[in-house]
Amino acid sequence: MIATLPKLAINCDRLDRSLAELATIGKLPNGGVCRLAFSEEDIQARQLIKTWMLEAGMSVRSDAVGNIIGTYAGTESGTAALATGSHIDTVPVGGRFDGCLGVLAGIEVAKVFQESQIRLRHPFEVIVFSDEENSVIGCKAIAGNAPTDPERYRRKDGTSIQDCLKNVGGDWDQLHTAKRDQHQIAAFIELHVEQGGVLEALDKQIGVVTGIVGQYRFMVTIIGRPNHAGTTPMNMRKDALVAASQLVLAINRLGVETKGEQVATVGHMTVSPNATNVVPARVDMSIDLRDLSEENLQYLIAQIEKECEAIAESTGTEFTIEQKLHVLPTPAKPELMEAIAKVCEELKLSYDYLPSRAGHDAQEIGRFTDMGMIFVPSLNGISHSQDEYTSPEQCAQGANVLLHTLLAIDKTL
Amino acid sequence: MIATLPKLAINCDRLDRSLAELATIGKLPNGGVCRLAFSEEDIQARQLIKTWMLEAGMSVRSDAVGNIIGTYAGTESGTAALATGSHIDTVPVGGRFDGCLGVLAGIEVAKVFQESQIRLRHPFEVIVFSDEENSVIGCKAIAGNAPTDPERYRRKDGTSIQDCLKNVGGDWDQLHTAKRDQHQIAAFIELHVEQGGVLEALDKQIGVVTGIVGQYRFMVTIIGRPNHAGTTPMNMRKDALVAASQLVLAINRLGVETKGEQVATVGHMTVSPNATNVVPARVDMSIDLRDLSEENLQYLIAQIEKECEAIAESTGTEFTIEQKLHVLPTPAKPELMEAIAKVCEELKLSYDYLPSRAGHDAQEIGRFTDMGMIFVPSLNGISHSQDEYTSPEQCAQGANVLLHTLLAIDKTL
Repeated sequence: MIATLPKLAINCDRLDRSLAELATIGKLPNGGVCRLAFSEEDIQARQLIKTWMLEAGMSVRSDAVGNIIGTYAGTESGTAALATGSHIDTVPVGGRFDGCLGVLAGIEVAKVFQESQIRLRHPFEVIVFSDEENSVIGCKAIAGNAPTDPERYRRKDGTSIQDCLKNVGGDWDQLHTAKRDQHQIAAFIELHVEQGGVLEALDKQIGVVTGIVGQYRFMVTIIGRPNHAGTTPMNMRKDALVAASQLVLAINRLGVETKGEQVATVGHMTVSPNATNVVPARVDMSIDLRDLSEENLQYLIAQIEKECEAIAESTGTEFTIEQKLHVLPTPAKPELMEAIAKVCEELKLSYDYLPSRAGHDAQEIGRFTDMGMIFVPSLNGISHSQDEYTSPEQCAQGANVLLHTLLAIDKTL
Repeated sequence: MIATLPKLAINCDRLDRSLAELATIGKLPNGGVCRLAFSEEDIQARQLIKTWMLEAGMSVRSDAVGNIIGTYAGTESGTAALATGSHIDTVPVGGRFDGCLGVLAGIEVAKVFQESQIRLRHPFEVIVFSDEENSVIGCKAIAGNAPTDPERYRRKDGTSIQDCLKNVGGDWDQLHTAKRDQHQIAAFIELHVEQGGVLEALDKQIGVVTGIVGQYRFMVTIIGRPNHAGTTPMNMRKDALVAASQLVLAINRLGVETKGEQVATVGHMTVSPNATNVVPARVDMSIDLRDLSEENLQYLIAQIEKECEAIAESTGTEFTIEQKLHVLPTPAKPELMEAIAKVCEELKLSYDYLPSRAGHDAQEIGRFTDMGMIFVPSLNGISHSQDEYTSPEQCAQGANVLLHTLLAIDKTL
C-alpha cells in the first residue's frame, strides 16, 4: 500500500513566495537585503515568521536570547525533538537565501505535515537563531557556549547586548536558561545555500555536508628596515614586502598542495610606510585556515611556522605571529549523512559530499547533539551580496530532501 | 719649489661650524631640520648663505628661479666657469648634511682661495639650487628643462609657484633667462653625502660617482575575483594578492640576479577589499626601477612585462601597467671621474666608484655640460632623517677632494 502513495512534497511556489515576502523587509535599492540582527527590520521579520509558524500549526516560544522556537507536536510524549532551522538576519548587504531558506523550508515542512495530517513520533522544531551574522549568540546560548561578559557583544552602533536582547523579548541575565541538550534535541538538520561554487562546478543538485570546518585566524607582523629605494643596493635590504610575498605564496602552496580539503587565505595586508621610493619596513597580514580536520590544521600551522622561520632567516626580517581566532570543526553525524544521501537517491537528485567552509548555526548545535546539513547550489558561488541566487526549483529540492530526511530519521532515532 | 709648498686644505672646523649654524634654521625638536623650499626658513637660510659668499670674496646674484650664484672671479676673462653647489632646502624631516654640505664646502673652497690669495684661470661658481627636494625647478631651469605650465608647480599648501618664486627674488615669467650652457659652465662638480650604505660597507672614504641613475616608475593594477575565503576551494580562486606576490618576487629576483647595478623595488601596495575572510579582488602596486644604463632598464621592463603576462595567465587575473615617471640617466664625465680619483690618491684617501641612485641637481646640470660628483659616507646609510650623519672629518675629506679637483681641472680644461 505505502509504495503506491503519491510521494509527499513541499509546495515549491509557496516556499518561493515566502522567500520573496521575507525579502521585502529590509529590501535595498540594489535588490539586496539589509536586515541586521535586533534592528527594526529584524523585529518585523520575526513577527512574520511567528505568524507563519502559527499558521502551520506550530506552538511558538522565544528563549532568553531571542531565538524563536516553533514546535509541531509529535505523537510520543517525552521524546526529544527533531529540529531544523537557521537565521533571518543578514549582513549589511545580503541576499534573500542565506539563512532564510533554512527557516522557511522548515516552516514549509510543517505546513506539508499539517496539510497531510502527518505527525512525527518526535516533536518537530523550527528554530530561528539570533544574530548568526555577527555575534552567533543565538546558537551559542543553546549550546551553552555564550560568553558571560556582556562587553563581548556590543553592536557596531554602540547598543549593548542587553538592550538588543530586550528588543526581541530576550533577557541577558537569563541567558543560561536557553541552554539545551541531547535529551531535548535528538538531531538537528540545517538546509542552507552553499555560498560557494562547488556544487555548481560538480553539476550536483544537493550537497551532503560532511561537517563544518574548523578555523584558525592569525595576524602576522613582519619587520624589515626602511631604506631609500634608490640608494640601497639589493643586497643591503631587509624588505618586509619581499618576505611577506614569500609567505603569501607559501600559504597558497600549502593550501593547494597539501592532501586534504583545507583552504588557506591571506585576505588582509598593509604595507608601511607604503611609499613608492621606500623599501617596505613593515607588513601586517592575516592568515585564515579552514579544514574539517583539526589534525590537518595543526599540520598546516606547523608548516607555516617553519616557512616563517626560513623566510625570516633568508630575508633578515623578524616575524611575529598572533592567533586571533580558533573554532573547532564540527563533523556531521555519519548516520544523518547516510540518511540524506539515501533520500537524494530516492528522489533521484544528484548529490555529492562536501564540507561547509563557512560557519553556520549547526556548527554550535552539533557540539551537543547529532548534526547534519543539506546544501543547495549558489549561482556563481556568490553570497553576502544582492547577486545571491538559488532557483525556486533548487530551493524546493533542498526542502524536499529536508522533509524526507526528517520522515526517515523519525523512524530510526 | 711647488712640491715643497704645504698642501692646500680646507678648514675642517670652520666647515663644521657653518653646517651647524645653517642647521639651526628650521631645527626640529628631534634634532632634524625642516627647511622647505620657499618657506620663511629657506629665505632666512638664503640670506645667511649670501652673507657667507660675500665674506668669501664672491660676487652674488640670484636668477629668475631663485638660484643663488656666488662667483669667485678668475684670472682669464671670458672663460667658462667651473661650478659646484647643491641645495639648502630639506624634506619635512631632513638632516643637516643632504645638500648643505655641497653648498657650504663650495663656499669653504672660496674662502681657502681667498685666504691663500689664489685665483683660478676660470671663474669659480657656487650655485644654491632652488627646491631640489620637491620640484627640482632650480637646476631644471638652468638646464632649460623647466616646464612652462605653472600648474605643474603648486606647493602642497596651495601656494602657486609664481608666489613662491617672488618670495626668493625670482620671476616665473623670466624663467627662460635662468638657462645656461656649456660655454658658461665648463664643468660642474657636486659634493654630496651618499645617502646609502655602500661606502660604509666598502670602508671607503670617498665615492667617485659614475653617474646618476635613470628611473622608471610604474603603477600596476591586478584584478582578481572577490570570493568568500571559506567557501571557495583553492582551485576556484582568482587571488589578486597571490598574483601580486609572484610579481613582487619576480621584480626582486630581477633586481638581484640581473647583471648590472640596477635596483628594483615594490614600495607601495594596497589590497582590496582587504578583509581577512575575502579572497583579494584587487591589488595596486608600484614598481620603481633605477639604473645607470637605460638599455638595462629597458631590458628589465621587458622582463617584467613577460612576468606579468605569465602570472596573469597562471592565476586567472588581469594586469594593467601604467608608466608614471621616466628620468634618463646622466653619466659622469670620465675625465672628471679620473681627476677626482687621482686627487684621492694624492690625498691618500681610499675611494671606490659607484653610481648615485638618488637624484641630485647634478643630474640636470649634467645634461648640458660635463658633470662629476663626489660622495662621502652616510652613517648607517641613513638620510632624510634626523639621524643623518657624516663626521666633520669625512665632510672635510670630501671638501678637500672638491678643492683639489677644481685646482686640477682648472689647469686642463
